[in-house]
Amino acid sequence: MVTSSQGPAAECVNVPLADRSYRIEITSDAVGGFADSIIASLGDVTHVLVIADQAVEQSWANPLAAALESAERGTAGAIRVSQTSVASGETSKSIAEFERLLQWVSAEGGDRRSVIVAVGGGVIGDLAGYVAASYARGIRFVQVPTTLLAMVDSSVGGKTGINLPTAKNMVGAFWQPSLVLVDTSVLSTLPDRSYLSGLAEVIKYGVIDDAEFFDYLESHASDLVARDPKALRHAIARSCQSKASVVGEDERETSGRRAILNYGHTFAHAIESTAGYGTFLHGEAVAIGMQMAAQLAIDLGMCDATLLDRQTKLIVACGLPTTWADADPDAMLPVMMRDKKVAHGKLRFILPTRLGAVDLLGDIDEAAVRDAIVKLKK
Amino acid sequence: MVTSSQGPAAECVNVPLADRSYRIEITSDAVGGFADSIIASLGDVTHVLVIADQAVEQSWANPLAAALESAERGTAGAIRVSQTSVASGETSKSIAEFERLLQWVSAEGGDRRSVIVAVGGGVIGDLAGYVAASYARGIRFVQVPTTLLAMVDSSVGGKTGINLPTAKNMVGAFWQPSLVLVDTSVLSTLPDRSYLSGLAEVIKYGVIDDAEFFDYLESHASDLVARDPKALRHAIARSCQSKASVVGEDERETSGRRAILNYGHTFAHAIESTAGYGTFLHGEAVAIGMQMAAQLAIDLGMCDATLLDRQTKLIVACGLPTTWADADPDAMLPVMMRDKKVAHGKLRFILPTRLGAVDLLGDIDEAAVRDAIVKLKK
Ligand SMILES: NC(=O)c1ccc[n+]([C@@H]2O[C@H](COP(=O)([O-])OP(=O)(O)OC[C@H]3O[C@@H](n4cnc5c(N)ncnc54)[C@H](O)[C@@H]3O)[C@@H](O)[C@H]2O)c1
Ligand SMILES: NC(=O)c1ccc[n+]([C@@H]2O[C@H](COP(=O)([O-])OP(=O)(O)OC[C@H]3O[C@@H](n4cnc5c(N)ncnc54)[C@H](O)[C@@H]3O)[C@@H](O)[C@H]2O)c1
Ligand SMILES: [Zn+2]
Ligand SMILES: [Zn+2]
Repeated sequence: MVTSSQGPAAECVNVPLADRSYRIEITSDAVGGFADSIIASLGDVTHVLVIADQAVEQSWANPLAAALESAERGTAGAIRVSQTSVASGETSKSIAEFERLLQWVSAEGGDRRSVIVAVGGGVIGDLAGYVAASYARGIRFVQVPTTLLAMVDSSVGGKTGINLPTAKNMVGAFWQPSLVLVDTSVLSTLPDRSYLSGLAEVIKYGVIDDAEFFDYLESHASDLVARDPKALRHAIARSCQSKASVVGEDERETSGRRAILNYGHTFAHAIESTAGYGTFLHGEAVAIGMQMAAQLAIDLGMCDATLLDRQTKLIVACGLPTTWADADPDAMLPVMMRDKKVAHGKLRFILPTRLGAVDLLGDIDEAAVRDAIVKLKK
Repeated sequence: MVTSSQGPAAECVNVPLADRSYRIEITSDAVGGFADSIIASLGDVTHVLVIADQAVEQSWANPLAAALESAERGTAGAIRVSQTSVASGETSKSIAEFERLLQWVSAEGGDRRSVIVAVGGGVIGDLAGYVAASYARGIRFVQVPTTLLAMVDSSVGGKTGINLPTAKNMVGAFWQPSLVLVDTSVLSTLPDRSYLSGLAEVIKYGVIDDAEFFDYLESHASDLVARDPKALRHAIARSCQSKASVVGEDERETSGRRAILNYGHTFAHAIESTAGYGTFLHGEAVAIGMQMAAQLAIDLGMCDATLLDRQTKLIVACGLPTTWADADPDAMLPVMMRDKKVAHGKLRFILPTRLGAVDLLGDIDEAAVRDAIVKLKK
């Protein structure tokens, strides 16, 4: 793991959403400077509510809260900081935790000008973002993602929400952050498997949107696996750029454009579900799912075999699985039929036509899908 | 109470909100036709979830659900209708009820194309609207208001939400309905006091926005008190028109324009709170509050005394209170200071300059406010 700092290097991505536009700042040694970024970007901040994942409370949330509290602001006065933490893990994305946090914000005297800062992975971002969307019918919030998946995916795009006992992400709001602050050094404490899992979504952007970025990933895979800050900043910035441009065209998932972000995901959800939740991390299932999708595209004559070759090599280089020995089309197909991408009982897939470009294909033959699954069963 | 039908007369108001624009249809004998309106307006409806106040379940929700279920739609097929009821009263605007309804929608197989229909007063509209805003990050909903307050106020404007134990309406979303269906005959079962209370908001629109409408109200007060369908349709349409135009300029309460709807309300909230909740109905407190606000405007030289005279006569003609013998400035002022309209510790009020026009005045002297309260203490 590379720990040398790269100096004041920073990358910036703008998410273009009219009056809801915002910036993503990507640095490698700036957590200390996050307080300044928040103050500079948001203007009239007098009360900040920090909501952190327990796993990063000590290491990242406390220093950020302290920096906010002691920020020198002249006549603007000190910032009042409230802080709470949330138990790590998906079960915190519940209505019970949502309610607890809303009552906490109220007890802390939150008003329409208060700002929520979410410090954690996708769980905390989704949960705290939904609290921000709902309190006083919407207050500002800042994402400080601490997992690679959150940096390249969940903290960009404005989807916030919680789970129902029977349905994941079924309750929520589209609510854009005012600012996203990424520091790659935060990833130093992230376990390997979780880190590598995030790389699957990075590869996804290369395949669906950005062939040049795919080239870059091929030549820098070992740097990324070693968590090299410079390579990471570039990969995160390009990933966010891709997601931001898709989201900018289809903010509320109405035009269908946003669906391209689901490349590999119809298969992945079926893999996660039939393997039993917890067997694969999400990114691992996405890696295998992208392989199945690419295989399906080749079988349907939509793209040539080199795409799958290159994708396979890159996934392997990133330490992720490319096949699943236990894949069972009989178990996976029913799950896929229940997926959101199914319209009128017909399977629909995001499939690559070449590196950097995908098509939405409806009306796909079940037999072809089975074939693709079986071919990746190695 | 007038019960004679007025034939197929209907009024329509458009709420202009770009791609969130919608229609308010106001009729007097058309509940039977609501199913057709929903189908015609919303297009691809295959699943409707009716959420009704227990008090109107039998009389209004059941027939509507039955009409939806038996609608003749040729090849479009039958509509699947799910139905539930909610206990009457403000306590239903809770996170617990919000959660129950979300799980119910999920158990009923609700998806992104399902439509929620709220049948009830402001409580049901706010609660069911917030469920619609949150399920699958937002599904369509239709308001079928059954109180006069809901017809002229809460069902227009897109504010949805629930209460925290310590803060009313503190959690929610801006989420516009797709359609609002008003049938004045629904009001036949509404108790007198609740009905008259709704007239206070109607008078409010005349004062803040529409002098000609104020004239109309003066000459038709007895028709309105008698619930004459024609007068009611006109009064509801003009009220909705006023609210719609304000909301169209300030959908999310950011420009300040929407604040004019709070005429009389800073006083009213203090009256409701110091009298003890339940002593006054909201509209009764608003009536007295508008009197205090008009008095304050006169004392500050902002408008002349005839405005208060005419307002007093109209409020009396509508069977509402114009004074409060127990008004206590020492008790009311602290409540008003905590109100949202206070900025930097200074009281701010929406005050009339003449009939049909108001100004937002900040920096008002506490003594003047006390004076106005005491003058209405008769
Ligand atoms: N909103 C969106 O657009 C979107 C997109 C994709 C995923 N998601 C959601 O994101 C969630 C998954 O996100 P995730 O993978 O970040 O999971 P997560 O938030 O649960 O984090 C994974 C684990 O890492 C720990 N952790 C976080 N940061 C750490 C750090 N710096 N060092 C050490 N440990 C750390 C957490 O405590 C947790 O145990 C899911 O709930 C998913 O639904 C949302
Ligand atoms: N969203 C907004 O913009 C907005 C604006 C104003 C008020 N509100 C909210 O609206 C609520 C008050 O609305 P409300 O006054 O309609 O109260 P409500 O919904 O509680 O209805 C009042 C009573 O009348 C009963 N009822 C309803 N329709 C009836 C009918 N046709 N016949 C007989 N009984 C009937 C109800 O059961 C209830 O007991 C409050 O929660 C308030 O916060 C919201
Ligand atoms: Zn994913
Ligand atoms: Zn009111």
